[in-house]
Amino acid sequence: MGWDDTFSRRLVGRDLTIGVIGLGYVGLPTAIGFLDAGFRVRGVDVNKQVIDALSLGENPGDDPQHDDLIPSKQGENWKISTSTSEMVPDCDVVLVTVPTPVNEERLPDLSYVSLAGEAVFSSIGANSGTIVVLESTVYPGVTREIWSPLVEKLGLVEGQDVHLAYCPERFVPGDEEHGVRQVARVVGAGDQKIGLDLRDLYDTLTSGGVTYVGDIEVAEAAKVVENVQRDLNIALVNELARIFPVLGIDVEDVLNAAATKWNFHRYSPGVGVGGHCIPVDPYYLIQKAKAAGAPVELITSARAVNSAMPKNVAHDVAEILKKNGINLSSSNVLMLGWSYKPGIGDPRETPAEPLAEALVEFGCEVQAFDPLVDGRFFPEGLATLVRDESEIKPFDIALLVTAHDEIIGLDWTKLSNLANHSLIYDGRRVLDSDMLEKLGWEVYLLGAPL
Amino acid sequence: MGWDDTFSRRLVGRDLTIGVIGLGYVGLPTAIGFLDAGFRVRGVDVNKQVIDALSLGENPGDDPQHDDLIPSKQGENWKISTSTSEMVPDCDVVLVTVPTPVNEERLPDLSYVSLAGEAVFSSIGANSGTIVVLESTVYPGVTREIWSPLVEKLGLVEGQDVHLAYCPERFVPGDEEHGVRQVARVVGAGDQKIGLDLRDLYDTLTSGGVTYVGDIEVAEAAKVVENVQRDLNIALVNELARIFPVLGIDVEDVLNAAATKWNFHRYSPGVGVGGHCIPVDPYYLIQKAKAAGAPVELITSARAVNSAMPKNVAHDVAEILKKNGINLSSSNVLMLGWSYKPGIGDPRETPAEPLAEALVEFGCEVQAFDPLVDGRFFPEGLATLVRDESEIKPFDIALLVTAHDEIIGLDWTKLSNLANHSLIYDGRRVLDSDMLEKLGWEVYLLGAPL
Repeated sequence: MGWDDTFSRRLVGRDLTIGVIGLGYVGLPTAIGFLDAGFRVRGVDVNKQVIDALSLGENPGDDPQHDDLIPSKQGENWKISTSTSEMVPDCDVVLVTVPTPVNEERLPDLSYVSLAGEAVFSSIGANSGTIVVLESTVYPGVTREIWSPLVEKLGLVEGQDVHLAYCPERFVPGDEEHGVRQVARVVGAGDQKIGLDLRDLYDTLTSGGVTYVGDIEVAEAAKVVENVQRDLNIALVNELARIFPVLGIDVEDVLNAAATKWNFHRYSPGVGVGGHCIPVDPYYLIQKAKAAGAPVELITSARAVNSAMPKNVAHDVAEILKKNGINLSSSNVLMLGWSYKPGIGDPRETPAEPLAEALVEFGCEVQAFDPLVDGRFFPEGLATLVRDESEIKPFDIALLVTAHDEIIGLDWTKLSNLANHSLIYDGRRVLDSDMLEKLGWEVYLLGAPL
Repeated sequence: MGWDDTFSRRLVGRDLTIGVIGLGYVGLPTAIGFLDAGFRVRGVDVNKQVIDALSLGENPGDDPQHDDLIPSKQGENWKISTSTSEMVPDCDVVLVTVPTPVNEERLPDLSYVSLAGEAVFSSIGANSGTIVVLESTVYPGVTREIWSPLVEKLGLVEGQDVHLAYCPERFVPGDEEHGVRQVARVVGAGDQKIGLDLRDLYDTLTSGGVTYVGDIEVAEAAKVVENVQRDLNIALVNELARIFPVLGIDVEDVLNAAATKWNFHRYSPGVGVGGHCIPVDPYYLIQKAKAAGAPVELITSARAVNSAMPKNVAHDVAEILKKNGINLSSSNVLMLGWSYKPGIGDPRETPAEPLAEALVEFGCEVQAFDPLVDGRFFPEGLATLVRDESEIKPFDIALLVTAHDEIIGLDWTKLSNLANHSLIYDGRRVLDSDMLEKLGWEVYLLGAPL
């Protein structure tokens, strides 16, 4: 048999069916993207609420970018279901975009990858040659370690009945310039032809370019390394934000000066990093490398620095309260922002949570103002979520956690009038200190001498 | 007295005398740069050989870029001397560019800064208003800590008889695009007018832009942070170069894949970092921060990773030799390159030295081929320096340390014929493995499974 160009021909003719397992913040825009690129798409989510909303043409998630994109009804080109076995047999390519969180012990939880794989493989017929692509972030080796035994157990032959590949999602939630249709992608596959076919397929989804990088493990490692590098560079500016105030220097002045150098990378210190990738992925690599006996001191140290930031900030806040003669156990802290990132309401893996925990441990009462956060995902009993500015109660110090537009643009005079003490701590270095001081606020800055 | 524009007017008229203390790899091009910009220049170096060479219009150093620039004779615009007291009284601005090495205990050696300061200040007259600028890399606080007491001791008044400032050199030896006439600069000075005057002065030297960044300490900190960030990012790829081979993955494949992401910073792993800045400056900050009780775990960890690389590579080499049945104690290792950087012959702070030490400790004999290194600066008794290709003796493994053009372009067939065993370890990932394998070499790569 010569070079098999069936896939290429069908790709050109858009005569391929793409399945997407998991219609969350990655899967949904991906499914819609491939639909818009002209392919038949089959979407699966185990959450019935998601499928119900989508069936009505409604956006099941909190990313407003998708609002206008949801197909209004199903048809030959767009079918959705809670049942994997119903959808997968149609598919030529199945993309798995399920979550890979870390558990309480900071170990990767691969149960979703495993369950989704089992559901997919048990729906694949012999000789179908279905390509199954994992997009979730994992450590190097996971795709094969988790999926190959499942394939075998189900009596399928890899490279014949089914092909495995890995293509990490790289998009930035809430960032229109780096959505699934813009970001560069990498594809890993043991079989070069599969890798090149997938490269051509993803090329119809994104304008950012797609590279076949070799084995599955290379693509898995690349994804983790991207986030590890980011974690490390943020950790550096966070460590510097602890060092320079002690020396009487504002870290932001230093970083601005250094940033005039052509090869300096400008990162900003803050109350901590959140989200599904940066604070999570390093643990994946750490766990895998440790198990193999490789050194992980630096990556581990970076993670420690970043995960200590909420506690450090809580200490600063306590210090400021005490300095101002305020009893911690009768104090109220107004956290401005709760989600991990400006412009989005996702409260998972937010540094606001350990920060609130530390404040509560100090005896403070905490209210968190965040108009974007959905109360259903707010931890119970820890703090009070305030979504409406008018419901903010008197407080002793305001603490900027997330630089939402809705927070930067607050009525600071009104807020000051509401305050028992007009103290504010800018944990993201985004506020106009001069303006606030003119309005009577006493301003403290993360990374500057207190 | 209103705004004093004397300096500005004299600057425009090039009616200023600039002194440069220390005519080494920073001071010499700086002095010549200001001469070419039209100023009167006074150069001082305590090394008589340097002044003697310059007096003859000869290049005293090893940077061939300066060859054609040395003024052929002295005159009103260009005077040089070993005597600070002879030159400084003429000067309006004195730039101090002396070395700031670290000592055996990895503590900063500030004796040159102190001695140069004492010599300069004792040559400054009362009311002269001389501006004295330190350019050497130091930790935040050094300029004032070392110099202010000297100024006071000599009966001078800061802000009247003498003004202190800091403007870190940032240029890259051997890199024509980042010489003293191209790089962006930052100026720190407690007195804003002095800072802005110096900004305007340095603007005549470099096309890269000059920023007044505030206090001396901010500029000092910026310089250190630039190098700390570089050290950290190199440390990450070096740690990854230790992790991925254990997982059966080549780190370069991973970094190339990750580099397709828009915000990834591509650094390369190697046998270790050298030079006067990156492996040195972090210790400055570590020492200062530690003394002040600030956390330094991350920076320290990065330094540890990078400084362990020569030993790691020596272990790899020993492993390969043993695997090939070669007795370490009768083996000969040919190091290809000795200086810390391609294209320059400077052997100071080169990782080649601890690498050779580790190999010698294993019992290996070491010859180092580096046509650029001056034998006078080569450590005695450790290895044999070979500057001429024809003098290379038979060896058991070649080990690429520095990617000089003269090394990449070696006659690899001839070298293979000379070898007892045609083994080669590429410690910089710059060689063409396929080509070498075709010529009969067995190629090992830093960061790839052995």
